[in-house]
Amino acid sequence: MSKLATILNRIEPIHEEAVNQANNHLNQLTKPQGSLGKLEDIARQVAGITGEIMPDLDKKAVIVMAGDHGVCEEGISAFPAEVTPQMVFNFLSGGAAVNVLARHAGADVICVDMGVNADLEHPELVSRKVRKGTRNMARESAMTKEEAVQAIQAGAELVDELVEKGYRLFATGEMGIGNTTASAAILCALTGLDASIAVGRGTGIDDAKWLHKQAVVNKALAINGLGQGDVASADYALDVLTKVGGLEIAGLVGVILGAAKNRCPVVVDGFISSAAALVASRLAPLSASYMLASHLSQEQGHTKMLEAVGLSAMLQMDMRLGEGTGAVLVFNVIDAAGKIMKEMATFDSAGVSRG
Amino acid sequence: MSKLATILNRIEPIHEEAVNQANNHLNQLTKPQGSLGKLEDIARQVAGITGEIMPDLDKKAVIVMAGDHGVCEEGISAFPAEVTPQMVFNFLSGGAAVNVLARHAGADVICVDMGVNADLEHPELVSRKVRKGTRNMARESAMTKEEAVQAIQAGAELVDELVEKGYRLFATGEMGIGNTTASAAILCALTGLDASIAVGRGTGIDDAKWLHKQAVVNKALAINGLGQGDVASADYALDVLTKVGGLEIAGLVGVILGAAKNRCPVVVDGFISSAAALVASRLAPLSASYMLASHLSQEQGHTKMLEAVGLSAMLQMDMRLGEGTGAVLVFNVIDAAGKIMKEMATFDSAGVSRG
Repeated sequence: MSKLATILNRIEPIHEEAVNQANNHLNQLTKPQGSLGKLEDIARQVAGITGEIMPDLDKKAVIVMAGDHGVCEEGISAFPAEVTPQMVFNFLSGGAAVNVLARHAGADVICVDMGVNADLEHPELVSRKVRKGTRNMARESAMTKEEAVQAIQAGAELVDELVEKGYRLFATGEMGIGNTTASAAILCALTGLDASIAVGRGTGIDDAKWLHKQAVVNKALAINGLGQGDVASADYALDVLTKVGGLEIAGLVGVILGAAKNRCPVVVDGFISSAAALVASRLAPLSASYMLASHLSQEQGHTKMLEAVGLSAMLQMDMRLGEGTGAVLVFNVIDAAGKIMKEMATFDSAGVSRG
Repeated sequence: MSKLATILNRIEPIHEEAVNQANNHLNQLTKPQGSLGKLEDIARQVAGITGEIMPDLDKKAVIVMAGDHGVCEEGISAFPAEVTPQMVFNFLSGGAAVNVLARHAGADVICVDMGVNADLEHPELVSRKVRKGTRNMARESAMTKEEAVQAIQAGAELVDELVEKGYRLFATGEMGIGNTTASAAILCALTGLDASIAVGRGTGIDDAKWLHKQAVVNKALAINGLGQGDVASADYALDVLTKVGGLEIAGLVGVILGAAKNRCPVVVDGFISSAAALVASRLAPLSASYMLASHLSQEQGHTKMLEAVGLSAMLQMDMRLGEGTGAVLVFNVIDAAGKIMKEMATFDSAGVSRG
């Protein structure tokens, strides 16, 4: 069995018994049943994932994967491609938004070079570079299947290493000029959605560039023969990732699968991270039970992307930065759900009448 | 001038100059302009409120006001009225959901008896009891105008005292069996919305009880002659609050006005707190600039209530507990916005190219 097949095979269903135990506990607490909404959903899901109703998830990390995109040649972004390596150094210096929000959440930022088109060296950088950027998907396949699989495996193995070090809660983040274009193409190819709905304005492009970006996505789908496959099949998902994905997106597919394999919750950030989640859910449908959505991005296809994975966002912050910024904000909410389980009084202990 | 008029007169517009300064700073930070969405909105609003672009809002409190409702006689709640005082003691013992979430946010819970129908004594309880519960609004006016004004003033003065002690950020919370019924009546009277849309299921009632609750709201509006006034006028808002409001709701109107008067941001919780915000915004339209919405409650009229105040929720957690639980979760987001202002690198300092 290949390494990837082994990873996929080791993802198991969540523990239903622990979900029920968590639910029974929640129903003893001094509140109308279900009135804490998604905080209660999180508590049940985390119990099902870990098998414990009050697990310790204190050690947490946002894995920020970076990669460049050959499709930038087509002029689809408001920022030049050189921003990808520049932002990697910003992550490593602690000055980017995700660093600020991760410190606020008590989480570590793990910055990974999956495929930046530059030679990067820094003591804190995790280098898993598969190649220097993808090929231009509007002209050819962005990756070979071997490259895509290598990136997935690298992501999953990184999670194995972090779990070994005690990390129990993960978030996905990314940086890669051009990666909303790749993500929109993935969304189209895996759901049949039209590019006019799937393609958004990324870091901020005008109407003319937005129409051009749609045309580039349509060209990439056509030239790579996508849109004809069985959209639910694992083989087709891998094919889509290979042809119109990105190295950082493939790495995040691996991170999500690795988290699921290790029975750790993984918080999915915005549009690009959700593209990885969509691919992961097609490669291993059980992996979706290990994901938590974070925020609804302003990127226009995000609602459809989350629906396709079966996730529901908690934050509506009109954010569209990526990096894992929305996911890291949700770490605090997950901590809150854990404390509800651990610290709230019961009807009996507080002497409160039931409805 | 009456005490209330003095409070209303002392609410000033926010500082536009500070808003602009905050915006200029945000646009130097290493992210596409506007890409942090509501985090940036918060940073600008807080600057406008306080007059400082990086104010210290560390000392924060959720003010949980409790009151009973005469309309409970009509059988509109899933829980008995005795739960109001029982939950007050739960707040004082630290075992309720709002206590857990406030500790998590580094905030203090200030528990206030505005009108609980029981003799309550506890060293930590702030007693501002106006009377033991409102009258049954389905038969007569819930309060006299003097009682409503006394409750508003008590709320505003409490904020004055807390500001004196160093508190700079507030959230509203409440407890009062029956208070979604009063809040729905306020929403109908101040917006003309039909009871079938304004009335929700509160702590959890079945279809028959929900229809009955709508009928009770309609009866209260009719018997009190509401629905005919100038919905935008301050006098009418005070009249509505008096006739179909609650003592804890009136107290929260005072808290919001008091926060605005003291130039402190105030985070508005769910449906009942938003009813107080709606009344406050009609009494003093400038007060709306000092409010931040927190979550969109599952209580069905909440969207319309927020729209009427001109607020937009940040969290979609399907919560419907009240107590200030949603507002307290947003304290963390406000802290995050503050750190974005203080800690993020600029394009120049990080050597990142602009778009």
